[in-house]
Amino acid sequence: MKAVAVLPGKPNSVHLREIPQPKLNDQPHAHVCSIPEGRAVLVKTLQIGVDATDREINEALYGNAPPGGEHLVIGHESFGEVLEVGAKVTELKPGDLVSCTVRRPGGSIYDKIGRNDITSEETYYERGINLCHGYMTEMFVDDAEYMVKVPPQLRHLGVLSEPASVCAKAIDQAYLAQHRLQVWSPKRAFVLGAGQIGLLATMMLKLRGLDVYTLATKPGPHRKSEIATAYGATYVSTKQESMHDLAKRVGKP
Amino acid sequence: MKAVAVLPGKPNSVHLREIPQPKLNDQPHAHVCSIPEGRAVLVKTLQIGVDATDREINEALYGNAPPGGEHLVIGHESFGEVLEVGAKVTELKPGDLVSCTVRRPGGSIYDKIGRNDITSEETYYERGINLCHGYMTEMFVDDAEYMVKVPPQLRHLGVLSEPASVCAKAIDQAYLAQHRLQVWSPKRAFVLGAGQIGLLATMMLKLRGLDVYTLATKPGPHRKSEIATAYGATYVSTKQESMHDLAKRVGKP
Repeated sequence: MKAVAVLPGKPNSVHLREIPQPKLNDQPHAHVCSIPEGRAVLVKTLQIGVDATDREINEALYGNAPPGGEHLVIGHESFGEVLEVGAKVTELKPGDLVSCTVRRPGGSIYDKIGRNDITSEETYYERGINLCHGYMTEMFVDDAEYMVKVPPQLRHLGVLSEPASVCAKAIDQAYLAQHRLQVWSPKRAFVLGAGQIGLLATMMLKLRGLDVYTLATKPGPHRKSEIATAYGATYVSTKQESMHDLAKRVGKP
Repeated sequence: MKAVAVLPGKPNSVHLREIPQPKLNDQPHAHVCSIPEGRAVLVKTLQIGVDATDREINEALYGNAPPGGEHLVIGHESFGEVLEVGAKVTELKPGDLVSCTVRRPGGSIYDKIGRNDITSEETYYERGINLCHGYMTEMFVDDAEYMVKVPPQLRHLGVLSEPASVCAKAIDQAYLAQHRLQVWSPKRAFVLGAGQIGLLATMMLKLRGLDVYTLATKPGPHRKSEIATAYGATYVSTKQESMHDLAKRVGKP
């Protein structure tokens, strides 16, 4: 089957490649962690998102091949349809739509309690990014543990699951850190950038009831400013108003 | 009686000044908050610490006089002996040793719940620093609410109460913020600077069981390196070893 891969360390090496089709009993990243007996899920890829991390990997600024090989299959923003599940998978069945998480657990206390997203280790094992092959291929296998079921009604948004999880976590961590203040009830947020992360963060901060300003360079109206505005945020072009002037104009809530 | 004051806005204006002797029913900072009936404490000054904030105030980089006057009595690291207490003060009596806190409450939610140390207001009312006269005078009056009793055995350390509170709070806030990680058990700390704050922080981090490295420029041995070492920390002169090299040498715990 086909896959899109790079040769880590070699700039602009992105290429189409023939790789073996996966089977349910494969162990795609046994060098990090094994899929327990009966817990594997085979997924047919429907969509894969591409972001700045992918661009950096292709520019050889980041990323390593899994041990024993020269290439790295890229793609970490996954969305697909379940084709087959192991005997011990009860939470998913063929036909279900899923996104698959990126980082696999290492050895730190965070990894051991299921918070491999905040590992304290310096080496990350991330599918499509570092030391594990990614999802930009026709099919892939992984542990049901790392599959996130996407409701069919959200099929058109499923590929945004991974970037959305990044925003949700960042906002959640900010609120958790501010528990140190005993009381903290923010009223206004400034989002720097209107790429997918900026727009998803805008949406989530609006859902928290904040007055949101989304800042990017290009003067609107354009697609991004329209999306920010549709969420109820105020889009600001930093070419038209500096951050300093904006802060001065809107003041404290 | 005598006081040491500056003329805010005028560099190097520090001078000795004659001011009225305070009485128990004075309201030393009525423009911010009043001392409730019967809750005043009159204190005789024993020692006042001097730090970089005082230097900056004298350099006119910081500080404002209380409304209606041109001068600001400086001194915010206080230590004194109680001379007289109001009828409703039960926690202090004449002869007790006290340090007096610096910031007085404004109007934010933090101020209202007694956490004026983390006010979200932009104007701080701080005795000896901004908009309230300080303690560098023969006597002072304040609300018993802002007095911290110092055990007689710690008489020689009482003047360090205020800077010690700064370190205690900073370390506490760091631990509280890291609750966001579910688990966090740091093993090593690096303290930058070996002034009073650096050395007090070194002591407190050692008391938390950490492996502490205290960094300052001047090669030891000297008084500061000896104090750091006496606490059980490792003193490092950044002239002898760069932070980069130190981090590389000691590695992760």
